Amino acid sequence: MSAKRIAFLGPPGTFSEEAALHYDSSAQLLPFASVAAVAAAVDSGMAEEGVVAIENSIEGSVTDTLDILIHESRLSIRRELVLPVGHCLLVRPGMQTADVKVILSHPQALGQCRRFVERCFPKAEIVAALSTAAAVEDMVGRENAAAIATRRAAELYSAEILAHDIQDRSDNLTRFVVLAESDHPPTGNDKTSLAFSFADDRPGLLVSVLQEFSSRDINLTKVESRPTKERLGEYIFLLDLAGHRSEGPVAEALEGIKAQSSLFRIFGSYPRYTSSA
Amino acid sequence: MSAKRIAFLGPPGTFSEEAALHYDSSAQLLPFASVAAVAAAVDSGMAEEGVVAIENSIEGSVTDTLDILIHESRLSIRRELVLPVGHCLLVRPGMQTADVKVILSHPQALGQCRRFVERCFPKAEIVAALSTAAAVEDMVGRENAAAIATRRAAELYSAEILAHDIQDRSDNLTRFVVLAESDHPPTGNDKTSLAFSFADDRPGLLVSVLQEFSSRDINLTKVESRPTKERLGEYIFLLDLAGHRSEGPVAEALEGIKAQSSLFRIFGSYPRYTSSA
Repeated sequence: MSAKRIAFLGPPGTFSEEAALHYDSSAQLLPFASVAAVAAAVDSGMAEEGVVAIENSIEGSVTDTLDILIHESRLSIRRELVLPVGHCLLVRPGMQTADVKVILSHPQALGQCRRFVERCFPKAEIVAALSTAAAVEDMVGRENAAAIATRRAAELYSAEILAHDIQDRSDNLTRFVVLAESDHPPTGNDKTSLAFSFADDRPGLLVSVLQEFSSRDINLTKVESRPTKERLGEYIFLLDLAGHRSEGPVAEALEGIKAQSSLFRIFGSYPRYTSSA
Repeated sequence: MSAKRIAFLGPPGTFSEEAALHYDSSAQLLPFASVAAVAAAVDSGMAEEGVVAIENSIEGSVTDTLDILIHESRLSIRRELVLPVGHCLLVRPGMQTADVKVILSHPQALGQCRRFVERCFPKAEIVAALSTAAAVEDMVGRENAAAIATRRAAELYSAEILAHDIQDRSDNLTRFVVLAESDHPPTGNDKTSLAFSFADDRPGLLVSVLQEFSSRDINLTKVESRPTKERLGEYIFLLDLAGHRSEGPVAEALEGIKAQSSLFRIFGSYPRYTSSA
């Protein structure tokens, strides 16, 4: 049997690759340049599954991923993965701390290490890159540059680790989701993700939807909103809840919401991540 | 009387500068390198007010601004401004469309013009910059580069406009807020922004808070969540509502929420933006 093909946000050395390896170390990993491209790879059959970041404990939602789930892709969430993210400051071999004049990284990583950068490199120029690994690629070709990236990127690009675990909080976690053609059967300890919006903005509508859950003692693990992209001030709401969409009370609550919504999409039900799994 | 000093996210040529000029064309405008620096400039008295973007109709919240309001600044929101954002594709004078191999801009602007870029420049390398004006600065020093930025940046940097209004939707609006020491007195047509969180995550808490508004017929114009930065899955909720914090029903609802919250902060009450104002 050939190995499963898993698409991830590349190049090699990103945290998405780390997550994909953690999820299935025997899979064939295929790097793509954007979250949209990862989704398209799964949509088109180039890969069976795609691993993308959806949320970080410091920086919040990865809005690219949310927007693609809402607007562009019909894929489901089959799994979630929660991994600690330890950022390192990488330089070309032999370079000293005093030589660092420019620091490159993905905006999410720069945000997660803001205090370290402000304290240790108050005069450094901060430059955004499209991924942490792309930052290392850029760094290699520049004078006086350092990059914030993974330990694995240091190996892949023969860079030196000048500092490790430089994120503002040591318990920095990122949640990834595995996108696939279908979601996951019930396991008894599941979560469900969905999106909905309303055709009008009467004050009570969101409350009425949330009551579908609170009245059935269903716990919401995430509440988020994204713009509809059509009019400023119109939102699509995203919820994560405890339970599987096939379970009685959850199924009832979802039917109740569907009846009140203009847009309604269940991204999928999947096992709640536990570090022992 | 000397002119009011207004801090904005620089360098000159950004949309924040456009918003600040629109707000008060006689003010002395002071550019700062980050939203945090704009807030610090007002906190420390270097400027009386600061203009920062808070939300875009395509890309959603500006999370930097939200996080600084929640975690770092004691400033209030005194005003909101809603402006159309027309993006242009800028190049060095004389450069042709076929020469464009690299496109630089702020990630928000890249997101707002994603479809244009994918259709017209499918092979171009996309490079992130810290602001749209910084992208133009970078562009000037590079071969085969174009930048997505304002019409004003084209003037300031003597660049040529290759294409205009390239955003994915023509009705692309950005909402800015004016930060100051105090918020605004009631005008009869106001909004109030606040943040709150709970010490535990019982299913009914958010519903109970939202009922404080729906039971008083107070309309919520925005609901958003941000991570507490302490634990994945713990959120701070942000609401905008119609009304001034000094009005009876709004004041009652706010007292009710305060009693149920662990964190509770009112960012301020301010006149609802109308384009004729």
